[in-house]
Amino acid sequence: MIATKAYAAQSPTTDLAPWNFERRDVGAHDVQFDILFCGVCHSDLHQIKNDWFPGIFPMVPGHEIVGRVVAVGSHVKNFKVGDLAGTGCLVDSCRECENCKQDLEQFCLNGNSQTYNSLEQDKKTPTYGGYSNTIVVNEDFVLHISEKLNPAAVAPLLCAGITTYSPLRHWKVGKGHKLAVLGLGGLGHMAVKFGVAFGAEVTVLSTSANKEADARKLGAHHFVVTTDAEQVKAAQGTFDFILDTVSAEHDLNMYLGLLRTNGTHICVGVPSKPAPVAAFSLLGGRKSLAGSNIGGLAETQEMLDYCAEHNIVSEIEMIDMKDIANAYERMLKGDVRYRFVIDMATL
Amino acid sequence: MIATKAYAAQSPTTDLAPWNFERRDVGAHDVQFDILFCGVCHSDLHQIKNDWFPGIFPMVPGHEIVGRVVAVGSHVKNFKVGDLAGTGCLVDSCRECENCKQDLEQFCLNGNSQTYNSLEQDKKTPTYGGYSNTIVVNEDFVLHISEKLNPAAVAPLLCAGITTYSPLRHWKVGKGHKLAVLGLGGLGHMAVKFGVAFGAEVTVLSTSANKEADARKLGAHHFVVTTDAEQVKAAQGTFDFILDTVSAEHDLNMYLGLLRTNGTHICVGVPSKPAPVAAFSLLGGRKSLAGSNIGGLAETQEMLDYCAEHNIVSEIEMIDMKDIANAYERMLKGDVRYRFVIDMATL
Repeated sequence: MIATKAYAAQSPTTDLAPWNFERRDVGAHDVQFDILFCGVCHSDLHQIKNDWFPGIFPMVPGHEIVGRVVAVGSHVKNFKVGDLAGTGCLVDSCRECENCKQDLEQFCLNGNSQTYNSLEQDKKTPTYGGYSNTIVVNEDFVLHISEKLNPAAVAPLLCAGITTYSPLRHWKVGKGHKLAVLGLGGLGHMAVKFGVAFGAEVTVLSTSANKEADARKLGAHHFVVTTDAEQVKAAQGTFDFILDTVSAEHDLNMYLGLLRTNGTHICVGVPSKPAPVAAFSLLGGRKSLAGSNIGGLAETQEMLDYCAEHNIVSEIEMIDMKDIANAYERMLKGDVRYRFVIDMATL
Repeated sequence: MIATKAYAAQSPTTDLAPWNFERRDVGAHDVQFDILFCGVCHSDLHQIKNDWFPGIFPMVPGHEIVGRVVAVGSHVKNFKVGDLAGTGCLVDSCRECENCKQDLEQFCLNGNSQTYNSLEQDKKTPTYGGYSNTIVVNEDFVLHISEKLNPAAVAPLLCAGITTYSPLRHWKVGKGHKLAVLGLGGLGHMAVKFGVAFGAEVTVLSTSANKEADARKLGAHHFVVTTDAEQVKAAQGTFDFILDTVSAEHDLNMYLGLLRTNGTHICVGVPSKPAPVAAFSLLGGRKSLAGSNIGGLAETQEMLDYCAEHNIVSEIEMIDMKDIANAYERMLKGDVRYRFVIDMATL
């Protein structure tokens, strides 16, 4: 077993604190990598607080993990010691269901193994995430990370990146499309970068007027302050797609009104409560309200390769491990531009 | 002006009763046809009761209209006296917006003219529907009705037919797809007929176990009683599409759970209240909740021609005009198999 240092929540009511545990030995198909950087995702906080469902404790959050390979199993062919490697939200899946066979491990019908707050495929062993110094992952769930990019700024691509890349690709958003990105946070700022890279005309919809300069710096062509009734009215019926990255409660009917005929509103944020949707909001213009959830392994590698080729990374603010509570507080206030990344050397 | 006999509601609180009014003279581009049959749509009742929005009174409902041409304007080329003709939910639109130009008059961006409870394109003259003895309609909004089918049973195709045909065509539902039809009423029974005709494997989802025999007679391959938890559980994750024809309140999250990965739930019914939708219901399987509203004129003609070719009509129960209040009462209880049609000779 591999002695591992981490930060864990012992219960939904306690703060993260140092915790030691053991990871499994490196199996024939496993890759072990020492973690250099781990992104801080809003879902880390949702999960340690049991916002969505009762969690498995102790919980070591973190699913935007980049590090350097220190050991590989005897059958591993695609990684060698010294490689940069990454792991996102998934560490395993059944590999047999129709979704797994179509590279949609995020929708594994037998229940995938998420990187933390989840169980391995034995359905018994808890998984522990990236707020730790090292990790052992089956090679099929380890991603290749290019040496060309800043590895700290790559870490958030493993969740915020793929969560926005995947729906834009699935719905074939690109040239000739007007794309609105709702919310300019960790997910939203990546959605802007990808939307612009794919050739769409991108508008940021935000409650914060003071984010306009940043939005434009990220490449957005337009900015709408959603608390300004005049600006909202002017945007009625104009977007082909809205990529909705907001996890706070918000009025979906208002946003559906901003879509053109045949438009699609894609949710990737997860508000805690169901949102009321009026039938007329959908019928009046044959509109769709859809959801998308991270991406499969092949698509995640595709996204990372695309980012390496097009020099796309996340905008980050580096923190020390000990400052995680403060980072969560600032994240809750939207006071991060645009993703905290933990320097795991500070653990 | 053309003296016209009708049944009208004088206010949202009064019953339908005889009323005389005048229709415009037949203009150069108009077709006048004497109404033989008019279907009774649930939306007739919603509108005279102001369920959705304040209506224009007196209101003559009826938008499933079939009759025989008695006069044509000097410029009319496609209709002649004696032809069977029909009109559905629309009698005009701006014809200039991008939707009208794409044969999507149902989504006219400048506001279309609906057959009743609406205004002509002058935005002043009220429109009056098919619970009347004759109607004058611009030729572009008059449909050709085949002499091959029973014209009384064709009438409901003008709303119930196109409302279900259009989304099945738009989402390309057919061979290899599992389609669930939610609700077996006026819309639902047409959805079953079209779904089967297009080659889909069709399941009816209904609260009424006693509709199973009818569902199978209409061609459905399976039947699920939605109040039976065991049956619902067995149907989890199985449908590519759900066509939701229900206007009563119902739990969309439960039905989204019945969809496969990438499945689409299409609403064509209009519940009065917004329905709560949980983000996880959409994210967990990249699902879509969509809406569709009748169809454009070209598609309505296509549907009518398809029905003539494939011998598809509505299942109807003929009523006399004077019995409309009773028909509404029975419709509210779901006690109609599957569409009331008024024999306008009884006016």
